[in-house]
Formats: sequence, structure tokens, C-alpha cells
Amino acid sequence: MRTARFLADGREHRGSPAEDGGVLLDEDGRRYLEADVTFLPPIRPRTVLALALNYAEHAEEFEMKTPEAPALFLKPPNTWIGHRQPVVYPKGAEYVHYECELAVVISRRARRVPATDAMAVVKGYTIANDLVVRDFVGDFYRPPVKAKGFDTFCPLGPWLVTADEVPDPHDLELRAYVNGELRQKGHTGAMLRRIPELIEHISGFMTLDEDDVILTGTPKGVSPIHPGDEMRMEIDGLGALENPVVEDRP
Amino acid sequence: MRTARFLADGREHRGSPAEDGGVLLDEDGRRYLEADVTFLPPIRPRTVLALALNYAEHAEEFEMKTPEAPALFLKPPNTWIGHRQPVVYPKGAEYVHYECELAVVISRRARRVPATDAMAVVKGYTIANDLVVRDFVGDFYRPPVKAKGFDTFCPLGPWLVTADEVPDPHDLELRAYVNGELRQKGHTGAMLRRIPELIEHISGFMTLDEDDVILTGTPKGVSPIHPGDEMRMEIDGLGALENPVVEDRP
Repeated sequence: MRTARFLADGREHRGSPAEDGGVLLDEDGRRYLEADVTFLPPIRPRTVLALALNYAEHAEEFEMKTPEAPALFLKPPNTWIGHRQPVVYPKGAEYVHYECELAVVISRRARRVPATDAMAVVKGYTIANDLVVRDFVGDFYRPPVKAKGFDTFCPLGPWLVTADEVPDPHDLELRAYVNGELRQKGHTGAMLRRIPELIEHISGFMTLDEDDVILTGTPKGVSPIHPGDEMRMEIDGLGALENPVVEDRP
Repeated sequence: MRTARFLADGREHRGSPAEDGGVLLDEDGRRYLEADVTFLPPIRPRTVLALALNYAEHAEEFEMKTPEAPALFLKPPNTWIGHRQPVVYPKGAEYVHYECELAVVISRRARRVPATDAMAVVKGYTIANDLVVRDFVGDFYRPPVKAKGFDTFCPLGPWLVTADEVPDPHDLELRAYVNGELRQKGHTGAMLRRIPELIEHISGFMTLDEDDVILTGTPKGVSPIHPGDEMRMEIDGLGALENPVVEDRP
């Protein structure tokens, strides 16, 4: 099953894509044109975690060694936005990069889950764009709040795709387009630390909750974006997450 | 005004301390013995931010230079607990430190607040204990999620004390006791970056929400704790935040 969360008629709905493209069906079978609704992130996480340098090829493009332990950071709630919502370009930033990532959604409160049982706490998947102001990164293993935490810097969506529809999350191609041009292409099979290992590591020190999200890192092929650009993140079987980049106008 | 959030009779209450010590009065004037209730953090933040090395004397005790920009990190929701709730000692950790800190509570959605206006978005103050597994810190300027993010590692409370009751938040003594012994003593006047500057910096890139919290850093005097210890964090005018340290028994 694939569902989106969206605003229409002044309230929140959960809906699925109709057979005819560009249309959403809500819980009561009502039809909405996708173009008329405001997409929200498909889930309401308590915490969104992310991984730095979880693809060797991405570490190489910055001439970095791969990290010895999972290099975790947090995407705070002010960063979470939905499909087609604008990403605000920080005024004066020199290098802002998109990062197309497979996002794992947790199904239930989970602590100390061994890797062998970890896939049982996966509710499903969505697409994330882990935006970053590269100017402020400094240490790639420990990206600071300011580099990863600007408002609108974590688009999620459009769909929550349940785990039963994704036979192998480590066999998916990721593609990022900017203004229709393919800029990033990778494969989830190349993750350094795979989903079960990540869940074991994280749940080893912190309790994960239902709808918490783990962004699993980005492959090589990041490049700068600018106001006016249209980003499109695609992952096999999960659809396409689109967000325009807009100027910062306080 | 000073209020706590607590659980009693199976539901959540907000209450104030009664004239006679050890008693809480809820919204309906009902009396509860403090010893009979479960304290929650006095506010429900969306985001809790914290500062590394915001007191020169604390940087010196680790022989670190003070940071060039505010060294922010996040305390995720799994760390937030109330007064008298147990802090779970991570099995196998060598150095776990308490850190007594003044916590600033934000009053409303706030973005791009200049330092000169920043005190107008402060709802009040509480006490925080910013616990850390020193073993995992590595880089003091960028403490990783694992060092600061273990379950129960951010006690907050007991009271939200409104800003009108704190004439000068930069003129408060902080004291940390372990098993009744004074281990840490400092003064909020020694903060490197003061509250207005912190709010300007943070709201410059992220939207702060009502009840978001900024932990303003710890003075010198951190030292290891162990299961069985009783921690007591005091700040002038804000009361005392007490938490026992317990063993990790899965």
C-alpha cells in the first residue's frame, strides 16, 4: 500500500493514488487532484536520524575515508516538509546540495533490536532529500546543526510505501534530477551499513518510535542547486519527490 | 509563576507548588504529594538544542579552545525525562558526566529574532541536566548523537519558571551535587554567548516553536557518575532537579 498525508478543504487527509494519475483518493473515497492539495511528509516522526558518508563512492567524491562507526546526525522538525513544498535557499550560501536517500520508516517502539530481527520493525519506505549547506559542514563525519538544519531542508515523500511492496530495499536505484537533468544515480546495494545494522546500532542506545525515520545516506553525484531550480528525487518503486528551490525572502 | 507537568490518577496535570513544601496544587486546586506523582518535563518541546563549550572555564578543564561559532547539538526526544525519573547508565560506559545547565524556554514561533528583541521570545526557564557519555565524544565541538542521545539523558525540570520571576538570567548560580556532595559550581554570568546572542544565531537559520528549549552550556566541575548515585542540579530561583542513576537492566 502507498499513502500520502495531505491538506485539502482545510483539514488533513490520508490518501492513496487513484488508478488515473495525478489523483488522490482519501479515506472516504473522495477524489482530489494532486495539483490542488498540499502534501505533508507521509508520516509524523518523533525523530529523524540520518547517516553521513554511508556510501563509499560519496565519501570518495569528497576524498574522505569512510567512517569507522555509523556517522549519525539529526534532522530537526523545522526541516521536515512534504512533496512539492518549496525548499528555501539560505541567503548568501555558496554550496547547497540535494542528497537523494532511501528513508526507512519504523513500525513500532523499538529498543535493542538485533540486526537479525530488524526488518520486523520496518513499516515501510519513502524518499528523502537530505539538503545541506556544504559551506558549514567542516567535519564531514559530524555535520553541524546549522549545515543540515535550515528550515525546509528535509523533504520527505510523496508516499509511505509499506514494506510488503519493497521486496529488497537494498536493490533499488536512486536518481536525482535538477531541472530534468540526471545529476545523481546510485544503488542502495552500495550502502556501507545496511538497514538491519543501522537499526541495531541506533536502537542500541536510543528508543525508536513508530514513524521515526532513518535516512540511509546518499550515493555519489551531489552538486549545487540554486533558487529557481526544480529538484526531483526518484527511487525504484517509491515514486518521485519533487521540490522547487526558492529564494529566501523574509 | 512556576508550574510542573505531572502524571497522577492516570492523567496529566499542570500544577504549582503549594505553600507547604512537597505538595502540588493542580488546575482544579486539588492537592498531590510530590512523592506520589510522576514528574514530566515542565514543557513539551518540539526541539531541544544545546551548546557545547559555552563556558570558558569548562573548555579549560578539557584543555579545549572555546569555539569560534556557537557549537550547537540536539538532544533528541528519547532523552527527555522529568524530575526524579531515573537516568539509565549505559552498560559498559567508562565516563558518564552530569552537566548542570540553565534551560531557556521559547514563548512563540520565532524566526530571525535580533539579539536586541530576543528576550521577548523567552517564556521562562528550567533546569537541565545534559548528560553525556564522554567515551563517545571524540570531538568536543561536535558531540555525536550517541554521546548525547542515550535514552533518559536530558532531565528537565522540575518547574517552568516564567521570565517575570527571573530578573536577570545571567546572574544565577548553578550547583550540581552528587550524593549530597557539591561537585560543580558556576555562574550564568560566565556564559561565552549569552541568551540573546544564542536566540539570534539559532533563529537565524531555524524556526523556533513555542516550548522549544535551549540548553545554554555547563560551567566547570563535571565528574563521573555511577549507578546508585543521586544527582541534584540547583539553579538560583529555579529550584532543584533531582534524578537517580540506575543500572541498565534490559
